[in-house]
Amino acid sequence: MLKIGIIGAGRIGRVHAESLTKYVKGAEIKAISDVNVTDELTTWAASKGIAQVYADYRQILQDPEIDAVLVCSSTHTHAPISIEAARAGKHIFCEKPIDSDIGRIKEVLAEVEKAGVKFQVGFNRRFDHNFKAIKARVLAGDIGEPHIIRVTSRDPDAPPIEYVKVSGGMFFDMTIHDFDMIRYLSGSEVTEVYACGGVLVNPEIGQAGDIDTAVITLKLANGALGVIDNSRKAVYGYDQRAEVFGSKGAVQTRNDTDSTAIYSCEGGVIAEKPKYFFLERYMQSFADEMQCFIDAIVNDTPTLVNGNDGLQPVLIAIAAKRSLEEGRAVKLSEIGSLSI
Amino acid sequence: MLKIGIIGAGRIGRVHAESLTKYVKGAEIKAISDVNVTDELTTWAASKGIAQVYADYRQILQDPEIDAVLVCSSTHTHAPISIEAARAGKHIFCEKPIDSDIGRIKEVLAEVEKAGVKFQVGFNRRFDHNFKAIKARVLAGDIGEPHIIRVTSRDPDAPPIEYVKVSGGMFFDMTIHDFDMIRYLSGSEVTEVYACGGVLVNPEIGQAGDIDTAVITLKLANGALGVIDNSRKAVYGYDQRAEVFGSKGAVQTRNDTDSTAIYSCEGGVIAEKPKYFFLERYMQSFADEMQCFIDAIVNDTPTLVNGNDGLQPVLIAIAAKRSLEEGRAVKLSEIGSLSI
Amino acid sequence: MLKIGIIGAGRIGRVHAESLTKYVKGAEIKAISDVNVTDELTTWAASKGIAQVYADYRQILQDPEIDAVLVCSSTHTHAPISIEAARAGKHIFCEKPIDSDIGRIKEVLAEVEKAGVKFQVGFNRRFDHNFKAIKARVLAGDIGEPHIIRVTSRDPDAPPIEYVKVSGGMFFDMTIHDFDMIRYLSGSEVTEVYACGGVLVNPEIGQAGDIDTAVITLKLANGALGVIDNSRKAVYGYDQRAEVFGSKGAVQTRNDTDSTAIYSCEGGVIAEKPKYFFLERYMQSFADEMQCFIDAIVNDTPTLVNGNDGLQPVLIAIAAKRSLEEGRAVKLSEIGSLSI
Amino acid sequence: MLKIGIIGAGRIGRVHAESLTKYVKGAEIKAISDVNVTDELTTWAASKGIAQVYADYRQILQDPEIDAVLVCSSTHTHAPISIEAARAGKHIFCEKPIDSDIGRIKEVLAEVEKAGVKFQVGFNRRFDHNFKAIKARVLAGDIGEPHIIRVTSRDPDAPPIEYVKVSGGMFFDMTIHDFDMIRYLSGSEVTEVYACGGVLVNPEIGQAGDIDTAVITLKLANGALGVIDNSRKAVYGYDQRAEVFGSKGAVQTRNDTDSTAIYSCEGGVIAEKPKYFFLERYMQSFADEMQCFIDAIVNDTPTLVNGNDGLQPVLIAIAAKRSLEEGRAVKLSEIGSLSI
Repeated sequence: MLKIGIIGAGRIGRVHAESLTKYVKGAEIKAISDVNVTDELTTWAASKGIAQVYADYRQILQDPEIDAVLVCSSTHTHAPISIEAARAGKHIFCEKPIDSDIGRIKEVLAEVEKAGVKFQVGFNRRFDHNFKAIKARVLAGDIGEPHIIRVTSRDPDAPPIEYVKVSGGMFFDMTIHDFDMIRYLSGSEVTEVYACGGVLVNPEIGQAGDIDTAVITLKLANGALGVIDNSRKAVYGYDQRAEVFGSKGAVQTRNDTDSTAIYSCEGGVIAEKPKYFFLERYMQSFADEMQCFIDAIVNDTPTLVNGNDGLQPVLIAIAAKRSLEEGRAVKLSEIGSLSI
Repeated sequence: MLKIGIIGAGRIGRVHAESLTKYVKGAEIKAISDVNVTDELTTWAASKGIAQVYADYRQILQDPEIDAVLVCSSTHTHAPISIEAARAGKHIFCEKPIDSDIGRIKEVLAEVEKAGVKFQVGFNRRFDHNFKAIKARVLAGDIGEPHIIRVTSRDPDAPPIEYVKVSGGMFFDMTIHDFDMIRYLSGSEVTEVYACGGVLVNPEIGQAGDIDTAVITLKLANGALGVIDNSRKAVYGYDQRAEVFGSKGAVQTRNDTDSTAIYSCEGGVIAEKPKYFFLERYMQSFADEMQCFIDAIVNDTPTLVNGNDGLQPVLIAIAAKRSLEEGRAVKLSEIGSLSI
Repeated sequence: MLKIGIIGAGRIGRVHAESLTKYVKGAEIKAISDVNVTDELTTWAASKGIAQVYADYRQILQDPEIDAVLVCSSTHTHAPISIEAARAGKHIFCEKPIDSDIGRIKEVLAEVEKAGVKFQVGFNRRFDHNFKAIKARVLAGDIGEPHIIRVTSRDPDAPPIEYVKVSGGMFFDMTIHDFDMIRYLSGSEVTEVYACGGVLVNPEIGQAGDIDTAVITLKLANGALGVIDNSRKAVYGYDQRAEVFGSKGAVQTRNDTDSTAIYSCEGGVIAEKPKYFFLERYMQSFADEMQCFIDAIVNDTPTLVNGNDGLQPVLIAIAAKRSLEEGRAVKLSEIGSLSI
Repeated sequence: MLKIGIIGAGRIGRVHAESLTKYVKGAEIKAISDVNVTDELTTWAASKGIAQVYADYRQILQDPEIDAVLVCSSTHTHAPISIEAARAGKHIFCEKPIDSDIGRIKEVLAEVEKAGVKFQVGFNRRFDHNFKAIKARVLAGDIGEPHIIRVTSRDPDAPPIEYVKVSGGMFFDMTIHDFDMIRYLSGSEVTEVYACGGVLVNPEIGQAGDIDTAVITLKLANGALGVIDNSRKAVYGYDQRAEVFGSKGAVQTRNDTDSTAIYSCEGGVIAEKPKYFFLERYMQSFADEMQCFIDAIVNDTPTLVNGNDGLQPVLIAIAAKRSLEEGRAVKLSEIGSLSI
């Protein structure tokens, strides 16, 4: 049994704790740390059978029994904690994004390389049953050469304005998953981005310097075109669809629902709305990404979401932001090691 | 924490053990018994954290710490063990069918009544997300008065001939779930049955005295009509659909699939086949029926599948068998306390 | 160009006139007759380019230029007029049912045989694109041996009570199409019928001696089972679905809608209701049955809905009525040449 | 009855002739002209009841009995013939595009204005039942404010290279319909375009100076974003879908199929491919646009696709072409009266 330490006991840290406790084989949680150790946290940790609760994540890094850490703390601490963890010889699961600064991401990746530890980034949607089904068709050659990759990604509601102000913008907190999905489904790197956006959901978002609606076009190294459409607010729920179209066919996915029930009445023929939000839609994928991480350590195999997979979406997001500002397509080669 | 003893460590006993360990809150398994205690069983029990493994279920019944038992042994032992368990003051979850003899079922129910213990029968499909969605529409009044209840229930493949010879026949081992579903969805009792069947899948099933394909029509006390179609073998997988049609509308469910992916190619537009069989389709419902049972004990509320819910489908199955033999509709009032 | 005479200028007569005028190649309408020749009819006929309007259908039968007649008059006149038409050497398209008396139907078929004219019965649903798609799969062997044939047939609203009183009952005015569909899709003859019905839509229908809701089970000569469910009133519209299930797979059809639009909103994900009723759903099939009839004459090939196809559904309807009265399965061999 | 003259007896001219003959009320075709009057054309015209066949379209324009003309000749003749027709006082249905030169289009519109004749452009897809269903939801306010309008438009196969060389490019011969659809569905004008494209289907198309795959993003005056994805070749058939997403919900359409049949077998659950190409998918819309044109004349109401609706998509196509060349978003205000 691998011993795991979780750094950061917020929502996503607890989601991973739940997965490790209930679904994942071959690992157990030994300790969790959070800058705020409350009674609630202590009680919760006990109920999950987690032996130790620390205020300082360094106690986790110093525990020689702990094999791997999950970096689930605030975004700006992902990079420095990952670097420390690598130096401490811990395998690392790092929540996305690694950082918003390309230089710092490269530093992290260099330390990981040097330490020879496993490193996986939290792009959980790669483990979703629907997107995996698309990927399987692509890998099987059923699509032929990919020509167009489409991702529709719309949240059921906008986050609080306070969050919008500090998140780095929609491309960094939301679209970054879609940038990863385009890379994952196409099996190719993005070379150029054009982003078009607007403030249509809530003018406060605009006042905070962000957008809430966007269409982003991407050119890929293999010649294919990617296109993403985003909205902060779809009143009917979390809209998460994708399509890969190619020389031999196309594969697309619809949303998941709580049941397949169809109600026919005078008003129409009514199916259920999509599952409400990411916890409902992606819960199984969170468990599966954990299992994947544990298996990579146990079997000494590569993780399925590696350091470059953490780097590229940040590069794309930076390019998208610049494209939006300048009204032109931006090549990733223009970005270099710049931060946002 | 309630303490549970599982009697019978076959497939369904282990399914429930898995659910209790992983998903169910408020209970833990203390002991399991099986007539064959093998090394494999001992190892498996240990891996699930089950402290005791017995060859004799009476050791479970005699353990004063054990609050409730799951009767997962061979069908012909369901009734006698349930009676003993009731007398020992244990709450009882009994796999379906309770028995094939109406008299013995009534004996069980009388002992349960006398002992004042909880009693739940293993009609897990009532806990399936799709059928629950139909039931919710019915209860909400969205269907109005139910007029027609349809159940399609087809297995992906016929069971081994050795099983067919001892199962009591298709109506008892397979359709019994559908009889329960008709009662559950309609909220009404079956009063009359007409069954029509044939041997179309495998002639050996006919030689064993059974059928493999059937259409059964049911009259309900509230005037509605029920209709079930069954096959032992649907080459495309486990086909489990239902529809309730009434004065204000209809609600129907489709099959579950592993993903929503749709592949469009020169050969057509291809969706996934239904989930393969009951373990794939109904796993969550097994967990949910366990939770329901535990909650009924903890909160001292009625179970959602009670003794009468165990009795009625057996009555219907007996009537269906007679109808098939005599080519006429058979009233349940004709059956009385007879066995098959 | 074949010259056609239409006998009976009611709704269905005009539907056929419309088809012949607009869609059908190789024929033109020379005359139409109706017991009530009104100004409206005369004007309508002129607008369709129909040269002659008669009160007496015999004028059509006596016109040597007229090659074929459509018998669209009242049901009780179908048989005598068809006999006269056959004797006059006219090819005959006869609306369903030919008659409710088996003896009279056999008389018609004998006269048709003797005269050597073409005879087609108006089971238009065989020409519907959806049911044809099922039939094509069956004929291609994609289903293997058929095991279960299901037809759901529900009207959007009950007919006027005055019609119910004279129609001969639901099995004759409504289910008769479904009886034909079971024969068509299975490619086999019905040998036994069990019918179960009730009055759930409107008690006046019961007072008129009829039922409004039914489930009918049929045994077929090839061993397959058929099942039909009927309602006089589906509030969401005309529900016309079918499924053939067999050893190699199943094929099913859904309802047609005016568009494929899906509206997602807070209330759900809403598709369109089925097309309202038979004129909306089956208009193209009416045109195609006409073309089929014309082509059979021009090419001297068999019609696709022949005399026996007109006879069998009436036999089944008589058996179904008796089954409903006697609560038992009724063999078609019991019916002989009896009328209802 | 209005009298119609058709100028140009190619494929689309004959499609309109078919519609006028079979489906459209209130009009009849008096004459047709084509630069090549062959025996085949004469025979075909006779079979449709068209009295006159001319080599010179001017004979149609000079016929005082003719009320309206359909301009179905080669694209480069649309503008001059429309101008002559307007001067001759004929109402004009003009196939798209009016011209590829903005100046010439404006000349046509000025002449039409001066003559006071009706003018309708052949954007038939506005009359398609699916797109009309989207538009109805938008007009009813069910979508709220439109935020994102998506059009997927993929042909089943690329046109011959000879056609590609003279068509003016994909944006002019194919995407122009989608530009119109974005305007139609959004109810707003396009202000800016970004186009991204590639040669992925056939390198010969690239050698001919065109592209075969594209994603185009559009900004609209009302703030909404439009996005179109195009391919010259979808192996599964004609893929024609759209979605409007807004503040109150979304509405999307799927493709039409020949039947609703679903075949379930060991290989999967298989639905039909989309209708093959535009003649199969859009036949009814061709008839409906004709009826709309005739009704506008008869009732002296505006046509539903007016001169500006003919002009704007050409402007957008010119902007898209420039965007593709320059790798930047192009404002329509930059285009002015320039030709491509």
